[in-house]
Amino acid sequence: MLYIIGLGLGDEKDITLRGLEAVRSCRKVYVEAYTSLLSFGISSDGLSKLEELYGKTIAVADREMVEEKADTFLSEASESDVGFLVVGDPFGWENQRQKFLQLPLMLNSKNLVPKIVIFADFSATTHTDLVIRAKKLGVKVEVIHNASVMNAVGACGLQLYRFGETVSIPFFTDSWRPDSFYEKIMENQRLGLHTLCLLDIQVKEPSLEHLCRGKKVYLPPRFMTVNTALSQLLEVEQVRGKQAYSEESKCVGIARLGSIDQVIIAGSMRDLLAVDFGPPLHCLIIVGQTHELEDEMLRFFSLS
Amino acid sequence: MLYIIGLGLGDEKDITLRGLEAVRSCRKVYVEAYTSLLSFGISSDGLSKLEELYGKTIAVADREMVEEKADTFLSEASESDVGFLVVGDPFGWENQRQKFLQLPLMLNSKNLVPKIVIFADFSATTHTDLVIRAKKLGVKVEVIHNASVMNAVGACGLQLYRFGETVSIPFFTDSWRPDSFYEKIMENQRLGLHTLCLLDIQVKEPSLEHLCRGKKVYLPPRFMTVNTALSQLLEVEQVRGKQAYSEESKCVGIARLGSIDQVIIAGSMRDLLAVDFGPPLHCLIIVGQTHELEDEMLRFFSLS
Repeated sequence: MLYIIGLGLGDEKDITLRGLEAVRSCRKVYVEAYTSLLSFGISSDGLSKLEELYGKTIAVADREMVEEKADTFLSEASESDVGFLVVGDPFGWENQRQKFLQLPLMLNSKNLVPKIVIFADFSATTHTDLVIRAKKLGVKVEVIHNASVMNAVGACGLQLYRFGETVSIPFFTDSWRPDSFYEKIMENQRLGLHTLCLLDIQVKEPSLEHLCRGKKVYLPPRFMTVNTALSQLLEVEQVRGKQAYSEESKCVGIARLGSIDQVIIAGSMRDLLAVDFGPPLHCLIIVGQTHELEDEMLRFFSLS
Repeated sequence: MLYIIGLGLGDEKDITLRGLEAVRSCRKVYVEAYTSLLSFGISSDGLSKLEELYGKTIAVADREMVEEKADTFLSEASESDVGFLVVGDPFGWENQRQKFLQLPLMLNSKNLVPKIVIFADFSATTHTDLVIRAKKLGVKVEVIHNASVMNAVGACGLQLYRFGETVSIPFFTDSWRPDSFYEKIMENQRLGLHTLCLLDIQVKEPSLEHLCRGKKVYLPPRFMTVNTALSQLLEVEQVRGKQAYSEESKCVGIARLGSIDQVIIAGSMRDLLAVDFGPPLHCLIIVGQTHELEDEMLRFFSLS
């Protein structure tokens, strides 16, 4: 049996009793370091905290392992119980955000300048793919759900069923400034719906410069702040100019949602640009039409 | 301190360790019987299971209590720790669905025929309102998140960020057949987005007939099935005729999501009409444009 177990949003204590029982019954336990393990502090003493509480040795499964060596732990799971821990809900956005990959696809052999081909793909492949592979191999899968940013954002007082399509904001580079989110935000605004903006997370991104020289070197992890997201959004509005939103548009900036020290601040884009939300992870909501009760809740989080 | 604690979707073991610690530290614990406590079987031995596992006596707070007597337990919470348990996530749709209320607003005194005035309102008032009231009284609130149907639907393989606005399907009556969901589904379809349909739950609904005679008698609980939802949807399509969807439209019917015996079946509206999904709770997804991986996952749940 392969258990895919959501850890929730805060720390090691956010696992469910059902999840904990499953972990304890497993012969082997992996934790995914793929996306947003930050709040669990896997790089410092977080892993040992998990291990201590769960009473199990936990192996960190990084991106390569999950994507390339899935067969290994699927074959383990066909013989005994294997646990695969992920932050948030296994199908929540933590594990499902649209992932923008930048890959050097071809080296121009003449002058050795890499031709960078960029495409967007589902990082969701990681888990959906895992489930599909397991099912094909006849390995049973049990998913143990937990809180996800996708429902916990309701904590700011905006009604979840009044959200339109979710968008991803990728880090802009000098040459790469994709803005497909713009039309989506515009559609949501037209329909009076709120837009949840997922902000780019770059963990274990290979350095293109090194990749082109045949070496695999990783860039330091980067997490987009509310501020960066807002300035990118406003830049795109200036270029596109269709008034999907403006500096006056009401937004909610959220940091470390579901943790003890979560921060929720409501204000205009201009106002939030100046706010320091502290450590990651951040996300942003562009507010649509509001109900009186939503306004009342937002006032508690309001800057002014 | 008022703890609002999500219980998750399955049974008593879906509480988080953080939630359990909070429950155990509380002087008084309430569980909300307001919406969808069904899977926890509050009416049978579910409550004692909760009490046994949590090591606490739990009082059932029904709709009237939450709405009318909130001040009582808010004043308790200002003096000691009070726990308020809710199914799913405190801000998930379990606790936030649009609630259609039918209220006899006026009695026509002449012939004693009640004039029924119907309006739709947020049941979300229950929790947002509770948080607002607490904040106004200076009572600290801590929300402990958990899984919600809103993220757990990802288990069917459809990507959460490809969902548009969520809609509610209320039980039709002879005289009341509201279809505001129709335009929303049409918008979602136009944008290629999936639509999550929340199906009506009627728990502790007062009987209008008795209300008009000055008595408060409750109707037996009702939970809309996937089948009823589909036949109502198709009826509305016949009336409106804008081809928002048809008998051929691909859907996913889900029952008891997050429980051990959850059922997920994909198929056309016509096909799913004939499927018995078993006991509640049910929900329904009208599928938008799909990615190849979404199709591959749906095939595992496909009828044919």
